[in-house]
Amino acid sequence: MTAPLSSLPILRLKPKADAKRIRHGHPWAWGDDLVLDRRARAIPAGALAVLEDAERQPLGLGVATVEGKIGLRLLDRDPAALIDQAWLAARIQAAVDARTKLYDEPYYRLIHAEGDGLPGLIVDRFGDTLVMQPNAIWLEEREAAIVAALRDATGCANLIKNGTSRARLAEGLPEVTEVLLGDAPTAPIQVPMNGAIYMADVMAGQKTGLFFDQRENHAFAARLARGGRVLDVFSHVGGFGLASLAAGAVHALAVDASAPALQLAEAGAEAAGMADRFATRQGDAFATLEALAEEGARFDLVICDPPAFAPAKQALEAGLRAYERIAKLAAPLVTEGGVLMLCSCSHAAELPKFRAACLRGIGRAGREPRLIYTGFAGPDHPQHPALTETGYLKAVAFRLLP
Amino acid sequence: MTAPLSSLPILRLKPKADAKRIRHGHPWAWGDDLVLDRRARAIPAGALAVLEDAERQPLGLGVATVEGKIGLRLLDRDPAALIDQAWLAARIQAAVDARTKLYDEPYYRLIHAEGDGLPGLIVDRFGDTLVMQPNAIWLEEREAAIVAALRDATGCANLIKNGTSRARLAEGLPEVTEVLLGDAPTAPIQVPMNGAIYMADVMAGQKTGLFFDQRENHAFAARLARGGRVLDVFSHVGGFGLASLAAGAVHALAVDASAPALQLAEAGAEAAGMADRFATRQGDAFATLEALAEEGARFDLVICDPPAFAPAKQALEAGLRAYERIAKLAAPLVTEGGVLMLCSCSHAAELPKFRAACLRGIGRAGREPRLIYTGFAGPDHPQHPALTETGYLKAVAFRLLP
Repeated sequence: MTAPLSSLPILRLKPKADAKRIRHGHPWAWGDDLVLDRRARAIPAGALAVLEDAERQPLGLGVATVEGKIGLRLLDRDPAALIDQAWLAARIQAAVDARTKLYDEPYYRLIHAEGDGLPGLIVDRFGDTLVMQPNAIWLEEREAAIVAALRDATGCANLIKNGTSRARLAEGLPEVTEVLLGDAPTAPIQVPMNGAIYMADVMAGQKTGLFFDQRENHAFAARLARGGRVLDVFSHVGGFGLASLAAGAVHALAVDASAPALQLAEAGAEAAGMADRFATRQGDAFATLEALAEEGARFDLVICDPPAFAPAKQALEAGLRAYERIAKLAAPLVTEGGVLMLCSCSHAAELPKFRAACLRGIGRAGREPRLIYTGFAGPDHPQHPALTETGYLKAVAFRLLP
Repeated sequence: MTAPLSSLPILRLKPKADAKRIRHGHPWAWGDDLVLDRRARAIPAGALAVLEDAERQPLGLGVATVEGKIGLRLLDRDPAALIDQAWLAARIQAAVDARTKLYDEPYYRLIHAEGDGLPGLIVDRFGDTLVMQPNAIWLEEREAAIVAALRDATGCANLIKNGTSRARLAEGLPEVTEVLLGDAPTAPIQVPMNGAIYMADVMAGQKTGLFFDQRENHAFAARLARGGRVLDVFSHVGGFGLASLAAGAVHALAVDASAPALQLAEAGAEAAGMADRFATRQGDAFATLEALAEEGARFDLVICDPPAFAPAKQALEAGLRAYERIAKLAAPLVTEGGVLMLCSCSHAAELPKFRAACLRGIGRAGREPRLIYTGFAGPDHPQHPALTETGYLKAVAFRLLP
């Protein structure tokens, strides 16, 4: 027995709990499956603990949150693992290696939580600047080691801590935005993606200022956009619209409720010399879709990438109705033979249900669809196979027949 | 009443049949749902008929096969539609328009059966040459009109009829391969795709000599292959391997049971000037995977794209076991941090079941996977939303952790 192992508290599964599920790869123990005696209950949230099955066979070492729905998140299958700077550096290096194989330029999701073996840690890379979201206590306690490992593995000069997520607040951590390395950018960072330039405001933007997860879906939509007119609804900083223009769209109209987001989109169009083909319209998406229909507007490609309408199970039915309504309002704006692309970032709306809601809306608009594409988050968002929740993003594209 | 309408026989749904399903977009009436009186039974297979619900409201016009599991395939929601050369030409033109928006070069699946509103018709385009698979009687009877419409819409000089499919023989149609327009190619056709050159033997090859459906998955795999060593199992004419070399792989080894297919793969590598980085190994895939493991071979990217192990529901369990076994044999050949891509073209193996089989195999090999990609057939294979069967192809890629 080494000292680190023996010094850690032990959490044990109830005899009825399914230890095989964890042994075969699931990285979580449910809180309900843990024996919660006085000693177990005394383990503070975020502390390391060794997980054992009911027969006292170790299953690994993880982060305990004994009062939570998830009682323990495994960090390492080796119960004697030392979660030190070297351990963190190895995980971070593996994540960096995987991304540099995929991308020519250093703009991507660098650490995707469980997908990279680091529960709760999100890091996005914008060239020389990293934006980190530490959403769990165990990360907060190891902040200095994580920052050092990120700096060493990437050579990045700047690291911003974005501590504003709901997940973080749910862990009881304070809301904070601070510069942990180098300087805060004084202007939005120019991010090259799919031939376009996006402006990421990493200090004040939504999440980390830009969503890298749609990159592959942007690329597919852009292929369809060549030579056509594009409507990009819930555009944020111009995601689908700017990629479409870079691929040769004649014109793109971006709709969003956020004026600051649309200003960044316009700045991106300007930076890429495409401003003359780009227009924005600030307003509610539903109302704008209705107004465009009344104006008789038509587009060869319409993309709707709304916020999560069904973030949790209770919101599923209402969320699916919202997706159906978006599809019903958007379909009439698509030319004959044109394409309607619909996205969902709702954890609770699984692909078949989301697709069915879209099809109901398209059908109610009197259009006949053919599915030509189903896409997910890009490969810089690796999914732990046992956690379908990390597969939240889905995009479907339908050609609407003449 | 126009003459064409009144002259067509009528097929009526039983009162218990779900007419709404068809009214809401499903293009098939089940044979069991049809009233099969003497008159209905007299309708020859492949003949046009009008479909009515139990209240005698017309649902559309279709192709009858009253004794089949599918009793009628709708061609047009308008029961008075005239299925003549103009009707065929409109469907074919819409299919051509959709493809030319997607592809710079004329190599793609041009007509994808129900997905393009033409049940039973498959047409692949190889530049100036079309390869047509007419797999239904109604097509056979309209062959001249279809050939003329294809020629007019594409300008292609050559059209080969490949009448060797199982679907065609199941319809009772004769096995035949013939030249319907222009000349038969005297050599394999060079097909540019993802920067590689593939050799398609449209007169003697499997199906139409080349599988266009994997194009998007080839492209994704190729991105992962840059700078690495690639193993392409069930390679056929070099699909994944040649795309990987074109993207910058250091070396690719193609494995297939078919010596002629591997010869075409070698010719493709030669034509693209990549022969020095390409090798082939003829033999059984399972045995070759075992042999490579014994030799200690390791690859940064391994792709297995087997034939349909679960072509029908009865074969599902055995098929899933075969996928699991492939994954188990392939995983040990992947370097630490490398990628294993597994494909299924089995109708019966839905994505979650196929993915689970792959994960069991990877787990049994002792490797820890992260899902980084899920792909399907490309957009030149449009799917009727009601027919999940047309979504047969799925590809999943896992990064295997260090």
